[in-house]
Amino acid sequence: MKMIDVLLGRRLANREQGEQKIGWAAGVPAMGLDGLGSSSYGPEAALTILIPLGAISLAWIGWVIAPIVALLVILYFSYRQTILAYPSNGGAYTVAKENLGPMASLLAAAALMIDYVLNVAVGISAGVGALTSSVPSLQPWTLELCLGILVVVAAANLRGTREAGWLFALPTYLFLASFLGLIAWGVFQIISTAGHPPPLVAPPPLKPAAEAVSLWLLMRAFAAGCTAMTGVEAVSNGVGAFREPVVKEAHWTLTVICAALGLLLAGIATVAHFYGLGAMDQTQPGYQSVLSQLVGAIAGRGVVYYVAMGSVLTILCLSANTSFVGFPRICRLVALDDYLPRAFAVADRRLVFSVGVTFLTITAGCLLVVFGGITDHLIPLFAIGAFLTFTVSQVGMVVHWRRRGGRNTARLAINAVGAATTIVGLLVIAAAKFMEGAWIVIVAVPATIAVLLAIRRYYDRLGRDLSPASGFTLEDVDRPTVLVAYDERNRMTDRAISFALTLSPDVVAVHLLRLTSPEQEEDLAARRDAFERDIAGPVAARGLVPPRLVQIPAPYREIEGPVLDLVERIDEATPGRAVAILIPELALDRWWERLLHSRRAQRLRAALVAHGGTRLMVITAPWQRGL
Amino acid sequence: MKMIDVLLGRRLANREQGEQKIGWAAGVPAMGLDGLGSSSYGPEAALTILIPLGAISLAWIGWVIAPIVALLVILYFSYRQTILAYPSNGGAYTVAKENLGPMASLLAAAALMIDYVLNVAVGISAGVGALTSSVPSLQPWTLELCLGILVVVAAANLRGTREAGWLFALPTYLFLASFLGLIAWGVFQIISTAGHPPPLVAPPPLKPAAEAVSLWLLMRAFAAGCTAMTGVEAVSNGVGAFREPVVKEAHWTLTVICAALGLLLAGIATVAHFYGLGAMDQTQPGYQSVLSQLVGAIAGRGVVYYVAMGSVLTILCLSANTSFVGFPRICRLVALDDYLPRAFAVADRRLVFSVGVTFLTITAGCLLVVFGGITDHLIPLFAIGAFLTFTVSQVGMVVHWRRRGGRNTARLAINAVGAATTIVGLLVIAAAKFMEGAWIVIVAVPATIAVLLAIRRYYDRLGRDLSPASGFTLEDVDRPTVLVAYDERNRMTDRAISFALTLSPDVVAVHLLRLTSPEQEEDLAARRDAFERDIAGPVAARGLVPPRLVQIPAPYREIEGPVLDLVERIDEATPGRAVAILIPELALDRWWERLLHSRRAQRLRAALVAHGGTRLMVITAPWQRGL
Repeated sequence: MKMIDVLLGRRLANREQGEQKIGWAAGVPAMGLDGLGSSSYGPEAALTILIPLGAISLAWIGWVIAPIVALLVILYFSYRQTILAYPSNGGAYTVAKENLGPMASLLAAAALMIDYVLNVAVGISAGVGALTSSVPSLQPWTLELCLGILVVVAAANLRGTREAGWLFALPTYLFLASFLGLIAWGVFQIISTAGHPPPLVAPPPLKPAAEAVSLWLLMRAFAAGCTAMTGVEAVSNGVGAFREPVVKEAHWTLTVICAALGLLLAGIATVAHFYGLGAMDQTQPGYQSVLSQLVGAIAGRGVVYYVAMGSVLTILCLSANTSFVGFPRICRLVALDDYLPRAFAVADRRLVFSVGVTFLTITAGCLLVVFGGITDHLIPLFAIGAFLTFTVSQVGMVVHWRRRGGRNTARLAINAVGAATTIVGLLVIAAAKFMEGAWIVIVAVPATIAVLLAIRRYYDRLGRDLSPASGFTLEDVDRPTVLVAYDERNRMTDRAISFALTLSPDVVAVHLLRLTSPEQEEDLAARRDAFERDIAGPVAARGLVPPRLVQIPAPYREIEGPVLDLVERIDEATPGRAVAILIPELALDRWWERLLHSRRAQRLRAALVAHGGTRLMVITAPWQRGL
Repeated sequence: MKMIDVLLGRRLANREQGEQKIGWAAGVPAMGLDGLGSSSYGPEAALTILIPLGAISLAWIGWVIAPIVALLVILYFSYRQTILAYPSNGGAYTVAKENLGPMASLLAAAALMIDYVLNVAVGISAGVGALTSSVPSLQPWTLELCLGILVVVAAANLRGTREAGWLFALPTYLFLASFLGLIAWGVFQIISTAGHPPPLVAPPPLKPAAEAVSLWLLMRAFAAGCTAMTGVEAVSNGVGAFREPVVKEAHWTLTVICAALGLLLAGIATVAHFYGLGAMDQTQPGYQSVLSQLVGAIAGRGVVYYVAMGSVLTILCLSANTSFVGFPRICRLVALDDYLPRAFAVADRRLVFSVGVTFLTITAGCLLVVFGGITDHLIPLFAIGAFLTFTVSQVGMVVHWRRRGGRNTARLAINAVGAATTIVGLLVIAAAKFMEGAWIVIVAVPATIAVLLAIRRYYDRLGRDLSPASGFTLEDVDRPTVLVAYDERNRMTDRAISFALTLSPDVVAVHLLRLTSPEQEEDLAARRDAFERDIAGPVAARGLVPPRLVQIPAPYREIEGPVLDLVERIDEATPGRAVAILIPELALDRWWERLLHSRRAQRLRAALVAHGGTRLMVITAPWQRGL
């Protein structure tokens, strides 16, 4: 069993494509980690904006979370329709391309790609940040921990979606079970105590209000809370990963994710309101997150607390996985339209689009290294990317239903409401967060689109250059002049000259003189004589045209220049005839053998291919030892 | 001007070889830094062993340094003779090879190579150590400083010996001028005060004796002091770098280095004796090196102190340069005898043996990283390697003069004395330092020799495999079957098929089916029709045998396997006939274009070369845009 099989699993045939598909139970962890994980920082972000209101913030938290949940419901129904209308891989990119044209689709693609990269870096660093604030002794290893988790997640994804999906299922369902259970118990307590539940561990008292309520403050809180909605689009981007019946499995996945997320958001707001939980300043000592206060208030600091908080840490770390599912898929779609290098569209031995996985790993790794593993302040940028995607997708769906016409008025209305609300959301977020980082997205998105367009232009130009002007016209069929790289006679050169003689009667052995020294003149004559005696003689005796030996100096030790000069001279002497250069090459069986051979044959070949001109062929005659 | 020209200088032609050679004034810094720099730690190492004697050590330091200086004189005369006898590159390796046989030469080579690598790591780390003990705020950057200096030294050497030599001349001559001047002034003070010079800065008082004098203690002090002699062999190894008259320039270089080193050793011992300088424990606070005490005692703590100590730091750091001159040369010699990969013997565009320089940089860099930039305790290992080299070289010279016979008795005697003394020195050092690290050398030297022998065996076997069994026998000259990798018709494939038809009438276009989907069957038929109409038709119309199209499935997406299967089938159908595979390849002009193309053509080619068997040729038909 080869090393690569152990690490990445056996290779999979094309016909196994279907077997790698997933159902809804595996789809929730594979595509929902990002969306569900963001419930841990969305409400907290909203409450943080409300800190200046002090205890009054409890009265307003409902007014901030309610529109977010309403937006989530609208998005849920909108995306159900998208999945139905585009049951193949149909995220914002496809929807925008088919309904709004290429520029809108590139806008969606750029927003998505940036979002996915940010998500990996931020998800992992937020998880590790939460971990190190629980276990401060791990603090010095922050970056190492981040990169280690990145590598594990990337490796799992290189094995393929199905196995990676199940690897993440346990913490996801543990998180859902513990928090939905806790919230249910909390709500029961609230009802049974008529709105005055006794907290097991009392949350820190809220400070007196320092500011009056203003619309701007509530808008900013709403914008901050909207980070809870990032990741909802993942299912529509990943529909292609589901097994038959695709639409049903995808709908179920979306339903579970949105329902759980909505319950979590509404539940957290409710419990916060009645138990009196507020956000705390993270830079102050004694800081406790809202979720930590929530678990402590409802369940105390026992086993349940550590299990629940552990599941939060885990799914934050693993929420990066959503990107590893989505990023390669969107890149593949974009690459199939020639906006990205074609390698992004090639399935590897495990049917994974490994170039996309690798690219994502490297970019996210660079972000982590540059920020030293602390990238929390990139979190706000998410919401912008996500809402940009939502908006493009919804507007595309509106156009889709309009074109279809007929009995789709209700569907059109749903997506129109979705589009209108996400546009409003986008504007609010962009306004509220411009200085906090929205400007970065405003730079990065057009830059990404410019790169995508440049790549497309390159392929378009190449396609034009390659397309035949007219029918196939056979050029000259004269046999070519064959040059054979020749140093001294051995089995390898014997075979090379035999091969050359099968191709053409016009064979020239080229001997490159690499060093100049006094004794070389005699040496040269001796070599010429040996060639006449050993090679040319026997060939002539068979009644064939004997090969000639040409000795050319290589004053700068590099061999490409002199060979190219010779090719040019031959080209001028026999215009219209092709020149072939035959290079004998030792076939190396083992990797370490490469260390023992200069790559001269390969370098010469590469230089000839790059600069050889129109009528040149480069022939490699591999020689295997023992054959 | 290209970037590489700015960084490394313009390329040099073979005929410029002579111009890159150096004279003695440049030779002293280029080859003497190691030897001269070791005067800063040799006497200190000897005095450190004598610390238990307290003030009594001053009475004995002369008895330890005197035999070292005597040994140096013997080595000087011995190496003069070696240079005379071997005026081409003739270090211990050549001398041993010619006189003692291959195993002795490999012993010398292994000892030298290990020594050179150690010297780089230890020299740089010792220099940086001295620097950071003067400027403690640099302490946290120890490793970074070490690696930075390594890169600068390596880059200077990649530009070539001459320029690198002059870069190092200033600190070398500054060091010599300041210390020889200081010692002269100190000796003058000693004489003028009849042996009781008043120190400007009094050295710390010596402790009372804790131990009695013993022969073992003096032997250990001698062994420690012998580190001062490392690097003396560098000139004999580097004779080839000198300009004409080679022997004279080399002799002058050796004379300057040995005379300066001898004066420094004797002078330091004399000044230490009369001024009462002793070694201090480096692990204790307030530590001052012997040289620091010496400069302070003679010149006080003024400008002279800082200039002199600065020059010590600099030449310690730069003593690594000796290795960069010597290591590539010894590797080249060993590689010419097939004990190292041949790339070590290839002069690059600047006529430098850059593989050796690079290898040295990487190994020394690894040592530095592994030891975190603190490799001082490797210093003792030097002396073993150096004395091993001395001994092999001297014994070889004795055999040399015996073989020459005649009037060489005096010369034989000199080298015999040299051999005897270095053997004694080697045994003393090995015994005194076995536990301190000599055992590492005893492991590393045979291991290195084993690797060198394995490489030689590989090349010998390859040479036997390649050597023709008999005269050139022309195999079948039937024109080969030519397969052309064919995806869809474009200018590139048009040209490829034209080329193929010039080589053989038997042309087969091979179309690899990468994906399986329902609509593909029709697609395949359409492609076959298009091929018949567009390619085969026009060729047949010219009266030639039309090419065929073969469509083969590639269920695992990799293309090598199916193509190799096809080759095998053709091979069986037409035994004795060669098969050529023609792969059209896009010639890429700019580096970034590679990112936009999968390396399919190159990967296929590499796989065919590696596994293609006996009768296969791989033809690349490069296609350049716009041509």
